Amino acid sequence: MSNTITLYNTLTRQKETFKPINSNSIGMYVCGPTVYGDAHLGHAKSYVSFDLIYRYLTHIYPQVKYVQNITDVGHLTDDADEGDDKITKQSRLEKVDPMAVVEKYMYNYFRDMDALNVLRPNISPRPSGHIPEQIAAIEELIKKGFAYEANGSVYFDVTTYNKDHDYGKLSGRKVEEMMDGAANRTLNAQSEKRTPLDFAIWKKADESHLMQWSSPWGMGYPGWHIECTVMSQKYLGDNFDIHGGGLENAFPHHECEIAQAEANSDKPFANYWLHNNMVTINGQKMGKSLGNGIFCHELFTGDNYQLTQAYSPMTIRFFILQSHYRSTLDFSNEALGAAEKGLKRLSKAMQLVDSLKSSDQSTVNVGELKDKLYAAMNDDFNSPIAIAHLFEAVKWINNLTEGKEQISEVDLATFKTFLNTFFFDILGLKIESDNSVSSTDHSAVNALMDLVLEFRASAKENKNYAMADQIRDRLKALNIQVKDSKDGAKWEYEN
Amino acid sequence: MSNTITLYNTLTRQKETFKPINSNSIGMYVCGPTVYGDAHLGHAKSYVSFDLIYRYLTHIYPQVKYVQNITDVGHLTDDADEGDDKITKQSRLEKVDPMAVVEKYMYNYFRDMDALNVLRPNISPRPSGHIPEQIAAIEELIKKGFAYEANGSVYFDVTTYNKDHDYGKLSGRKVEEMMDGAANRTLNAQSEKRTPLDFAIWKKADESHLMQWSSPWGMGYPGWHIECTVMSQKYLGDNFDIHGGGLENAFPHHECEIAQAEANSDKPFANYWLHNNMVTINGQKMGKSLGNGIFCHELFTGDNYQLTQAYSPMTIRFFILQSHYRSTLDFSNEALGAAEKGLKRLSKAMQLVDSLKSSDQSTVNVGELKDKLYAAMNDDFNSPIAIAHLFEAVKWINNLTEGKEQISEVDLATFKTFLNTFFFDILGLKIESDNSVSSTDHSAVNALMDLVLEFRASAKENKNYAMADQIRDRLKALNIQVKDSKDGAKWEYEN
Repeated sequence: MSNTITLYNTLTRQKETFKPINSNSIGMYVCGPTVYGDAHLGHAKSYVSFDLIYRYLTHIYPQVKYVQNITDVGHLTDDADEGDDKITKQSRLEKVDPMAVVEKYMYNYFRDMDALNVLRPNISPRPSGHIPEQIAAIEELIKKGFAYEANGSVYFDVTTYNKDHDYGKLSGRKVEEMMDGAANRTLNAQSEKRTPLDFAIWKKADESHLMQWSSPWGMGYPGWHIECTVMSQKYLGDNFDIHGGGLENAFPHHECEIAQAEANSDKPFANYWLHNNMVTINGQKMGKSLGNGIFCHELFTGDNYQLTQAYSPMTIRFFILQSHYRSTLDFSNEALGAAEKGLKRLSKAMQLVDSLKSSDQSTVNVGELKDKLYAAMNDDFNSPIAIAHLFEAVKWINNLTEGKEQISEVDLATFKTFLNTFFFDILGLKIESDNSVSSTDHSAVNALMDLVLEFRASAKENKNYAMADQIRDRLKALNIQVKDSKDGAKWEYEN
Repeated sequence: MSNTITLYNTLTRQKETFKPINSNSIGMYVCGPTVYGDAHLGHAKSYVSFDLIYRYLTHIYPQVKYVQNITDVGHLTDDADEGDDKITKQSRLEKVDPMAVVEKYMYNYFRDMDALNVLRPNISPRPSGHIPEQIAAIEELIKKGFAYEANGSVYFDVTTYNKDHDYGKLSGRKVEEMMDGAANRTLNAQSEKRTPLDFAIWKKADESHLMQWSSPWGMGYPGWHIECTVMSQKYLGDNFDIHGGGLENAFPHHECEIAQAEANSDKPFANYWLHNNMVTINGQKMGKSLGNGIFCHELFTGDNYQLTQAYSPMTIRFFILQSHYRSTLDFSNEALGAAEKGLKRLSKAMQLVDSLKSSDQSTVNVGELKDKLYAAMNDDFNSPIAIAHLFEAVKWINNLTEGKEQISEVDLATFKTFLNTFFFDILGLKIESDNSVSSTDHSAVNALMDLVLEFRASAKENKNYAMADQIRDRLKALNIQVKDSKDGAKWEYEN
């Protein structure tokens, strides 16, 4: 079958057929984290979602260039252009260099994403590593009349831009209406902005800002929005296929990215805008500031008051994939517990696939199931539907194992291939090497040895030395050495 | 005891007492890898060595700022200023962006170093992320007359610098002698250098160079030497405590770093220069270009023609620590096998420490052993001597366990503390969760269950149903469920 992907484009508010600029090399940019704290369930939802999309595109197309930034400067506490720099603020709290804060939380971020089996992006650029590129873009915007300098900072001029462009096209807002709304927010008397909608693309640095660079406008640092415009275009070109991010960043962040890019290049920026929805808890938004956030490492250890147990990384991943990326994901221990059970059932079946035996004919329609799986993923990456179809396969696997269904040799080969492709490659699931099994084994060995040594002791007591020696020989064959002592028999593995 | 560290300073060619600039915060910079290929045993030797030094300094001083760069641009194939950029060359081979090459090998590097339990540096700066800082330093050098522009490139003027400074002081070379030697190397007719000793600090980029930036001298990229000068000084100040690196980089790389830094700041650059020695094989240098290099991941899997088996990361670490960082490390399977055995013996003893029991008095001199361990580390971080003393402790632990020696309560507390400190914190060793043990457990469980079920079968055969039931009940208590079938009894863990 031909795999035509249909995806929901926030820009047009409808599902569209995905038409790559160059089908030999897809370009995708996703807004990455600002690394001033650990990754929470919201990050997991966002990056597992785009990992699914990246994996599926990689399955369909020969090459996907996946760029995801790591924000290390310029993201201010109010998400716009006021407030403290998030990294700098954290560095004061931790009393270390801002760059040490960045290293620490970037490490933790990738550690948690690795655990969730999120593939690394091809490039993870950082704004501090692209200062000259950002300054060049800002100079260009000023030259073209889309930005103005004021007292060492530079602002994007939304009014001028909106004359020939459509500021608000992504988020569906109208500049006039926003202006009316903004009229109520009086511009601060000291404001350097011409209108409240203008936004900073370069900020003058006061002494408290520990990261600053020399620029044509004095010492300063780039605004949060300009980094994504500049770094996506540097690595993917002025016009590229897909831009992704969290829905909460559609405005102002992504809207501003588009304005900056299209003002400078006079070309469309990203063709498709994909946004993942948020995580809720009891219907309420989950967030750090709301006090109900849960870090990924807390999920893995169970160490958070909202958790009744620990959940393995694959359980979290499976839980996320069981809802669509554009749907909200409602957290509850019940839902996670159900995901845990479901994944166990699926994993158990996946381990049986290799030992399935073929028959002369098939009683299951393998081709149809395969088509359904692809159809689900082609329909805006609908992982919950794909997973539902995999559970149909679980039923088949169990029935085939018990001889209640039959499968032909050709069908079995197809079945194996697409199950492995979907489970491991596309959904990115893993059979978890269950630590609890190895510790179960470990305690079982100890307890079984107690039992066996009791048998041996009672054989000896009954003067059944042949039996006692036989037990010792059998254990020796297992590389288990028995030593008799005053306190009874002891044992250890031989080296 | 007071811990005064004595270290061998390459700059003075003698052991010196370490006197920190600010004992509340030590600054250490170590040259990191150029990430165009995987880390090999030579990298492991270098970064385990400096990890040992970092760990010991962290143990003695309240704070150590450890900066280690990741070179992502400017390192040319001849290690000086001719040839292709190593990253760019690799990106052509792999047909991906240079930055994708950087991400891939940086990921692999940290993966392998993490496995070796090498602590992450506080900051891992990259030259592509410090272009403005490097351009500013170069501009300053030109302004001060220590550098000159020629046809879009900028060169450091060794002759001018050497008038008031000592170029060659680190490596013990004399400019006059080097000039005489260089006279035989005729300067290429097209050479832009004034003398053969001058070195590039900014290189004009031709089209083939995929990473290039705008500068006052046109499009180009920074030289390899300038990055370390600029990034170490940015994060640690103009004058800082320790600069480390491989001995093979003392000249020209470190010599050039000193020249650039001291020309600009007019202050001493690093106070102490520490160099680790190389890895040899049969007395010959081990190296990629010599065809006898071994990657870290090959060591861990055994997948290299020179390896007779796989070695665990801790075996490799222990092997490296068993020779001094300034000594060469001669690779052989025999030596690694011995390290593996030694580490096993040490780890086994470390696992007994917590169960040691105290007596009224001590027959072992704990204080003396502790002093010896610190003395070894204080003497230029002499890990092989420290390890030899730990084996003295192993003897004690075994004798104490068998009741052949005694230890008082106070001494036992001291003993436990410093053993744990040295083994885990300073030497950075870990008790490896032995996969072979859990797989041993797993096969043992299966074999033991075969044995137990045989007993049960024979009890049933002998109509000893009480015994058979007792076995079943004992197994049930272990969460092992026995199911009788036509093919004999089967078992599984109950959920």
